[in-house]
Amino acid sequence: MRMYDLIHKKREGEELTKEEIQYIVKGYVDGNIPDYQMSALLMAIYFKSMNDVETATFTNEVAHSGEMIDLSQIEGVKVDKHSTGGVGDKTTLIIAPIVASYGVKVAKMSGRGLGHTGGTVDKMESIPGMQTTIDNKDFIDIVNRVGVAVIGQSGNLAPADKKLYALRDVTATVDSIPLIATSIMSKKLAAGNDAILLDVKTGSGAFMKTIDDSIELAKKMVSIGKHAGKNTVALITEMDIPLGTMIGNSLEVKEVVKTLKGEGPEDLTQVSIDLAANMLYLAGKGTIEECRELARKAIENNQAYEKFLEFVEAQGGDITYLEDLEKFEKAKFTKEVRSTKEGVIHHMDTEMIGTASVVLGAGRKTKEDNIDFAAGIELVLKTGDKVKVGDTIAILYTNNENSLDEAYDMLLESYTINDEKIELKPLVLARVTEDNVERF
Amino acid sequence: MRMYDLIHKKREGEELTKEEIQYIVKGYVDGNIPDYQMSALLMAIYFKSMNDVETATFTNEVAHSGEMIDLSQIEGVKVDKHSTGGVGDKTTLIIAPIVASYGVKVAKMSGRGLGHTGGTVDKMESIPGMQTTIDNKDFIDIVNRVGVAVIGQSGNLAPADKKLYALRDVTATVDSIPLIATSIMSKKLAAGNDAILLDVKTGSGAFMKTIDDSIELAKKMVSIGKHAGKNTVALITEMDIPLGTMIGNSLEVKEVVKTLKGEGPEDLTQVSIDLAANMLYLAGKGTIEECRELARKAIENNQAYEKFLEFVEAQGGDITYLEDLEKFEKAKFTKEVRSTKEGVIHHMDTEMIGTASVVLGAGRKTKEDNIDFAAGIELVLKTGDKVKVGDTIAILYTNNENSLDEAYDMLLESYTINDEKIELKPLVLARVTEDNVERF
Repeated sequence: MRMYDLIHKKREGEELTKEEIQYIVKGYVDGNIPDYQMSALLMAIYFKSMNDVETATFTNEVAHSGEMIDLSQIEGVKVDKHSTGGVGDKTTLIIAPIVASYGVKVAKMSGRGLGHTGGTVDKMESIPGMQTTIDNKDFIDIVNRVGVAVIGQSGNLAPADKKLYALRDVTATVDSIPLIATSIMSKKLAAGNDAILLDVKTGSGAFMKTIDDSIELAKKMVSIGKHAGKNTVALITEMDIPLGTMIGNSLEVKEVVKTLKGEGPEDLTQVSIDLAANMLYLAGKGTIEECRELARKAIENNQAYEKFLEFVEAQGGDITYLEDLEKFEKAKFTKEVRSTKEGVIHHMDTEMIGTASVVLGAGRKTKEDNIDFAAGIELVLKTGDKVKVGDTIAILYTNNENSLDEAYDMLLESYTINDEKIELKPLVLARVTEDNVERF
Repeated sequence: MRMYDLIHKKREGEELTKEEIQYIVKGYVDGNIPDYQMSALLMAIYFKSMNDVETATFTNEVAHSGEMIDLSQIEGVKVDKHSTGGVGDKTTLIIAPIVASYGVKVAKMSGRGLGHTGGTVDKMESIPGMQTTIDNKDFIDIVNRVGVAVIGQSGNLAPADKKLYALRDVTATVDSIPLIATSIMSKKLAAGNDAILLDVKTGSGAFMKTIDDSIELAKKMVSIGKHAGKNTVALITEMDIPLGTMIGNSLEVKEVVKTLKGEGPEDLTQVSIDLAANMLYLAGKGTIEECRELARKAIENNQAYEKFLEFVEAQGGDITYLEDLEKFEKAKFTKEVRSTKEGVIHHMDTEMIGTASVVLGAGRKTKEDNIDFAAGIELVLKTGDKVKVGDTIAILYTNNENSLDEAYDMLLESYTINDEKIELKPLVLARVTEDNVERF
């Protein structure tokens, strides 16, 4: 077998066989296939795509390029959840306790934030004492005992994906749907869960900007899950508007607590209930409608909140901060962003808002940056709200006073205010299963 | 400027600017742009192509990556000729003396054979004493004195093309028309002539298999010539059938001599007259019809043959071999290929016939191979001829007896013989100028 012939074959739009894909992934990881041949293949894949079987095979090979996490010591159904990344997306910390409170096991590996989107691990670490690096045995023990544990992603998960992603990142081959699906799902397959819920964010704050692209990506990922024998469902959720009102690590943790107590923002609450319902559904807890009812009840009767405290405590977090949210260290500097226009908020450039939160210190510009846990943005008004000149639309929080002006201008620029009527899109735009695409 | 953005731009089908193309070629030659980014760009160019302006700019940059030959010391119009490579194509050695006999200057750099097609420099070296490595001053002196000199291509001509070609060769990006045009024309621009005649071979023995692709390539190259201020014309000529009856170096030289004396095969004579006429036309010697008449006359009155002897002698060749063709060393082993079928020769797999000549020793499998100058094939019967079982269709010549059986089988396989009627295509299929494509 020669890599040249496989590049040529894909360039001509032909299907690569299992043996050919194995040869490619193994050869690339081993260093026998040079970057310059792989980048030519990736560009050919960009133009000619891969069908479901090719993508599933590719993903499986990438998954098996490193450690395959063994969760067999955890009793019960283990359901994973993955978000493609959004602004203000703290749903993992809400839905994990909801579903764990019904005995569904959540043994989750999460990432750190990079770019304009935050990461669950960073949010957790804003709770004093909370550990996110836990060895495998303790991780499994906590899940068996508490029902939920969330740790940082292992360094040796799907190393082929790391190498491929680094190459795609410099050769303009990132935004290929089969390659995105491979990248996400290879790590999910390696993470060892029984079922997977995917949250594909769509809109100005998301990687996928259109619902059609999001559905295509979702279908590809659900198909990969199916080929790997993992029950997989994807929700396409709205990310034209940040989720909830808080962006930034401890700010978001506070919003998580409020939401678990039934006092959270309506959008965040509804999306969390839908996501939790689908995880419960994947774990066999009933129909979607029944599962949605279970999720609602877990908030109403405080069982999810109690589970959250248990989970934080099990990972070393100081729950007195959760019981008294005022204990969280506050940012030294705050500034209210005031509207210069009158009308209705028509659009929010959610990616720019996410980037503004990074400017304030809530995220990383490069992998080496430290995070200011107290930094972030409170969105007082969001898309659809009426606004007058001088009204506070958002509040900035930071320990770095110098960042306020830049973030202020970005916030003001990110809001589009005019007189036109606006109709809000549903929060969950579509649901993709193995054999169905349901649009809402 | 970032290479990433330029790959992305081309991937989206946008036009690269002059500054961007300069950045790419310079960066690649300097080593600042790595192979893996260049191969991704080349694959994007494969899919999205380059327009005439981009291709002309790219070619100009590649040409200027190395030595630009200065032919200004040569008086008169200097016309170059390039063939995309065929089997039995010895036209350079026929047309150069024809046009030189009318005062048109031919200061030509030629390549060596590789793969199934031969090279003019190898053919010349089969004449004892003939030198093809001549320093620049002597080269120019010979052209001024004799009117024609042909030497091996300088090692430092368009080094960017060498680097690019090596990368294309392993990344399945060779067969892109703008990239082929760039590769050919960059060396032609660097070679310093005033006008260029391109012979684009088409058919089973050529790189371009269809007339439409050949015309597209010809148009691209003529456009590059125009942008560089060089008067350029392309003929699309037939290569479904080897040209003439002889394949192999000294065998072809003998056929050249016969053709210059008016005793050559009809196809070779006609194509040579058409090519020579177009070179004379490019040098301003009259209309195409007038130039065709000049070319015919140069053969009839022996002036081209006399010029050929002068040319060979000037480069150190022993012309007694040309005056008595029996002096050429003969191959030790010959074998007649006999037909196993009766009917009409319907098709010749010309690439396979070329490869058979390489098997016999007439060409190189790798750059390091030595050539057996006496080896080759005489085609006794060609497409359109009637044949009976047992008739000799070809004669094999070699000094390596072991190669005979393999070449024999290849020859037999390359002939398609059946009962269907066949109509031969014209030898010159089309003529492409700056503003016209004329099909014949």
